[in-house]
Amino acid sequence: MTIPQPIAWTPDGGVRILDQTLLPDTERYLDLDTVDAVAEAIRTLRVRGAPLIGIAAAMGVTLSLREGPPSLGAVCAASKVLGATRPTAVNLHWALERMERRAAASTPARLAADLRDEASAIWDEDRAMCARIGEAGAALIGGDALVLTHCNAGALATGGIGTALAPVYTLHSAGRRVAVVADETRPLLQGSRLTAWELSRAGVPVTVIADGMAASRLRRGDVTCVIVGADRIAANGDVANKIGTYGVALAARAHGVPFYVAAPTSTIDPATPDGSRIPIEERAASEVAGWRGHPAAPAEAAVWNPAFDVTPAELVTAIITDRGVFAPQDVAREV
Amino acid sequence: MTIPQPIAWTPDGGVRILDQTLLPDTERYLDLDTVDAVAEAIRTLRVRGAPLIGIAAAMGVTLSLREGPPSLGAVCAASKVLGATRPTAVNLHWALERMERRAAASTPARLAADLRDEASAIWDEDRAMCARIGEAGAALIGGDALVLTHCNAGALATGGIGTALAPVYTLHSAGRRVAVVADETRPLLQGSRLTAWELSRAGVPVTVIADGMAASRLRRGDVTCVIVGADRIAANGDVANKIGTYGVALAARAHGVPFYVAAPTSTIDPATPDGSRIPIEERAASEVAGWRGHPAAPAEAAVWNPAFDVTPAELVTAIITDRGVFAPQDVAREV
Repeated sequence: MTIPQPIAWTPDGGVRILDQTLLPDTERYLDLDTVDAVAEAIRTLRVRGAPLIGIAAAMGVTLSLREGPPSLGAVCAASKVLGATRPTAVNLHWALERMERRAAASTPARLAADLRDEASAIWDEDRAMCARIGEAGAALIGGDALVLTHCNAGALATGGIGTALAPVYTLHSAGRRVAVVADETRPLLQGSRLTAWELSRAGVPVTVIADGMAASRLRRGDVTCVIVGADRIAANGDVANKIGTYGVALAARAHGVPFYVAAPTSTIDPATPDGSRIPIEERAASEVAGWRGHPAAPAEAAVWNPAFDVTPAELVTAIITDRGVFAPQDVAREV
Repeated sequence: MTIPQPIAWTPDGGVRILDQTLLPDTERYLDLDTVDAVAEAIRTLRVRGAPLIGIAAAMGVTLSLREGPPSLGAVCAASKVLGATRPTAVNLHWALERMERRAAASTPARLAADLRDEASAIWDEDRAMCARIGEAGAALIGGDALVLTHCNAGALATGGIGTALAPVYTLHSAGRRVAVVADETRPLLQGSRLTAWELSRAGVPVTVIADGMAASRLRRGDVTCVIVGADRIAANGDVANKIGTYGVALAARAHGVPFYVAAPTSTIDPATPDGSRIPIEERAASEVAGWRGHPAAPAEAAVWNPAFDVTPAELVTAIITDRGVFAPQDVAREV
């Protein structure tokens, strides 16, 4: 099994990324040698997925030392540039703050090695977290499975084997017969472009469906469980995730199919009491109204394009985390 | 209010159609002068929507008389060509049989006029049926409304003001404030390409959403009701319609939003006891896996692409027909 790896160090200490905007047609890796190049890659979604953005930014900070004498000032300037790319991404700022703290505790002579250590530690921790989610989810599922997922919470979104897809890869590695039904996930098609691509590369059978087909597929009776990722989990267990998740949860409930959320405990936000308090980003109309330059809707039509929705805790069977599996109402006690 | 009209006679008795494959970018009308040209337009979905296909085929039969001396043989040959275009479309065969019966009862001298009369009658009856659905639906809604719909069951699918959109146009004409939320309807985007286009042309405000956004929109609380069309209604009131309809019905039920089906009584099939007996066409993988030549999924991925789904009668609040409004379990008594 070869799970694609969306990020790596280059032999000379640069940052190599898989350009995810070109998938699934083209598998192109870019070697980035400057802070600005990493910032551009994050801003333009060549690198995406909250955990992976944090790792890429941390690795990007190390490049600041190539542009002048090693100094805390250079690190902070790099952190500012990288932090401005996706202002709402929590992992990004968390990773940059770790890099700044490490730099502040270092010396000019040790700075390069310390920064590389810290970025590698952030990556290693994420990889380990993915592996623990995979083990917990695989134990929960316990055997052969057909898993329906939405969006991409896989290897391409993390430094390891993903969150929602981690149990899939863990079962596959253990020799279980596991396959995936991937919602294409309009408007940006992370399901058909990314989830289907990484599973195919890893040898896991995958079937792509349009989002409107999920309810019919769940009625068919062959789906073992749904597993999705999460962007934020409120204190009461309500889950914000990619738009379209909530409709899948309603259909899963209607057909008695378990609906699991897989996420690191860092996704749990005890300061947000319930899903109604989670702000939902609305994105550009052009994502829905067009496709690679071709209009898909008339110019006169309005578009409503929320990027996320909220699935209420009562529709969530369990939350699979790096610290084990919890009922949604219990998960906030873990942080 | 100017509702687009997708078909017309040309001044010299040809068939003028709006090429629906080019919408929403390009509004191009084609004048068709031969049976083969009409057959090609139906086969390639330039003309689509079950009622409109029937009308176009009937009008196409009249062109057979241009290609030789008027004869029943020429009419039957044309009917055969046109009937082979979309083998599963019920209205198509019903309309062609009407044309053949009329031809059989005619004389060579009267044949051209009789065929034109019959095709015009089929069209007129469809227009009247749409108007009656519009009146029944408008009375049911009774005032200002925000209507969520899926796919296109509008003027572009019929010879009149549509089925699902007929109540919208009727309310709009009566001066009510009515607006529509249109699911884009993957994979073929009849919602964003066709529904949004015809409503915009008619001056009805329309907001396009990706299919996965419908559940969140219904939770928001501003949608008055859902209205969709139907491809077939079983004796028990189960409704086959464009894939994605079932998920919308589940979300409407979860939020207490009325879910209406608007369809002519000819859509009711008393010979089919329930939805499980309705055969569901599966279409080409390329519809989901690509977009105007660009791959949207990797070649290794499988695709499941059912064209329709079945919404169980218990999720349908009422069925709006040309003979009035019925509970789903009562509708089969009307035919």
